[in-house]
Amino acid sequence: MNPESANVKACAFDIFGTVVDWRSSVIAEATSWGKAKGLNIDWAGFTDRWRIGYRPAMDKVRKGEIPWTKLDDLHRMILEDLLKQYKIEGLSEEEKVNWAHVWRRLKPWPDSVEGLSRLKKKYIISPMSNGNVALMTHLAKFAGLPWDVILGSDLVEHYKPDRELYLSAPFYLDLKPEQVMMCAAHASDLQAARSYGLRTGFIYRPNEYGGGPVGVPDKAKPGDFDVVSVSIIDLAQQMGA
Amino acid sequence: MNPESANVKACAFDIFGTVVDWRSSVIAEATSWGKAKGLNIDWAGFTDRWRIGYRPAMDKVRKGEIPWTKLDDLHRMILEDLLKQYKIEGLSEEEKVNWAHVWRRLKPWPDSVEGLSRLKKKYIISPMSNGNVALMTHLAKFAGLPWDVILGSDLVEHYKPDRELYLSAPFYLDLKPEQVMMCAAHASDLQAARSYGLRTGFIYRPNEYGGGPVGVPDKAKPGDFDVVSVSIIDLAQQMGA
Repeated sequence: MNPESANVKACAFDIFGTVVDWRSSVIAEATSWGKAKGLNIDWAGFTDRWRIGYRPAMDKVRKGEIPWTKLDDLHRMILEDLLKQYKIEGLSEEEKVNWAHVWRRLKPWPDSVEGLSRLKKKYIISPMSNGNVALMTHLAKFAGLPWDVILGSDLVEHYKPDRELYLSAPFYLDLKPEQVMMCAAHASDLQAARSYGLRTGFIYRPNEYGGGPVGVPDKAKPGDFDVVSVSIIDLAQQMGA
Repeated sequence: MNPESANVKACAFDIFGTVVDWRSSVIAEATSWGKAKGLNIDWAGFTDRWRIGYRPAMDKVRKGEIPWTKLDDLHRMILEDLLKQYKIEGLSEEEKVNWAHVWRRLKPWPDSVEGLSRLKKKYIISPMSNGNVALMTHLAKFAGLPWDVILGSDLVEHYKPDRELYLSAPFYLDLKPEQVMMCAAHASDLQAARSYGLRTGFIYRPNEYGGGPVGVPDKAKPGDFDVVSVSIIDLAQQMGA
């Protein structure tokens, strides 16, 4: 670890893609539901479009085009569009809520729970995600993520890359920005966190996008961030935990 | 359990006195520190006065006499008065911070960790305390309290018995008030929670005040609250966890 990171007290994690495998989780649940419903749909495409809708929906909030809307509700709004696009009709309100909440039921990457459990022995661990507190809490229960504390975007009513979200971790944890390490698989997230004084830990996630159209996995070389790792277990090891 | 409580999804706990034994913890640390410093002081009296200062300090915030001040900082303000009263002089800033943070280092009651761990298998568990997030997070690390999520008074900038604090749990957890059970050793806390639609679980804590001047332990009989218990393990059992 970079010696300047020695003062880190808390590791705050990006969630979607960094800690959990959103794509294969949503595809699996959708495929199984589609079979039961007799729907013949490309669920990988459906899932990718859902994720592609995520950034523009948050940006509407960030630009003030719509009032503060938590991520659970943005997921629901995007879902409504998708149901129209794919001509999926006749869902009950309960089914729609359940569908929008599929983002509360995502599988962790194989190293996530062990890596977080190791880090927890030495550091405060928390999400620092665009997800809201309820989403993050249910996801943690589902995936067995052993957070000490849940920090969600609804606490400050801001989405990344807004300053308010990055600084919410040191604020609520009563730490200095340099005592918090933002951990993520996305270079732009870490660059934003660094610009506000946080330490940065990169985790390589080559399979996040599954070769689909949502994105290309970021890579990093030693020195690009305070810690550059290939898994949360590797990150824990480099952080002495 | 009262059948109407069957829909409970989250148990939100009062902390000081209900989950942790503040009095004997503060006395023990103070006594040991006093010995090392060669101070001859009645530390039980010191601790009781500290706790007696708690309600008036929060009420100053509630009445708007002082701006929002988190509990860590109220503890520090009361400490400054106590140091004068007891003529304890010459403490460094670091020692004062460390002292104010003694409220982050409190022992759980013997049943707390096991009871919470059992509840956690079936319910979302969280603090619902006047403590701020940092205080609650550090306390959870110290005492091994396995919260799913930390809800602190600084999220809404209100102290009990303000409505905003009680309703922060259903709000952030995306639940209805009747899906949240407030769990506490203090009848007035539960009565306030009930008035805002929450379920209530009483836990009898006969030793909270140690016979000192801060208060007399509340008692409850079956039917006074949705659940009436003698420990968090007993509460978990009655809640089917």
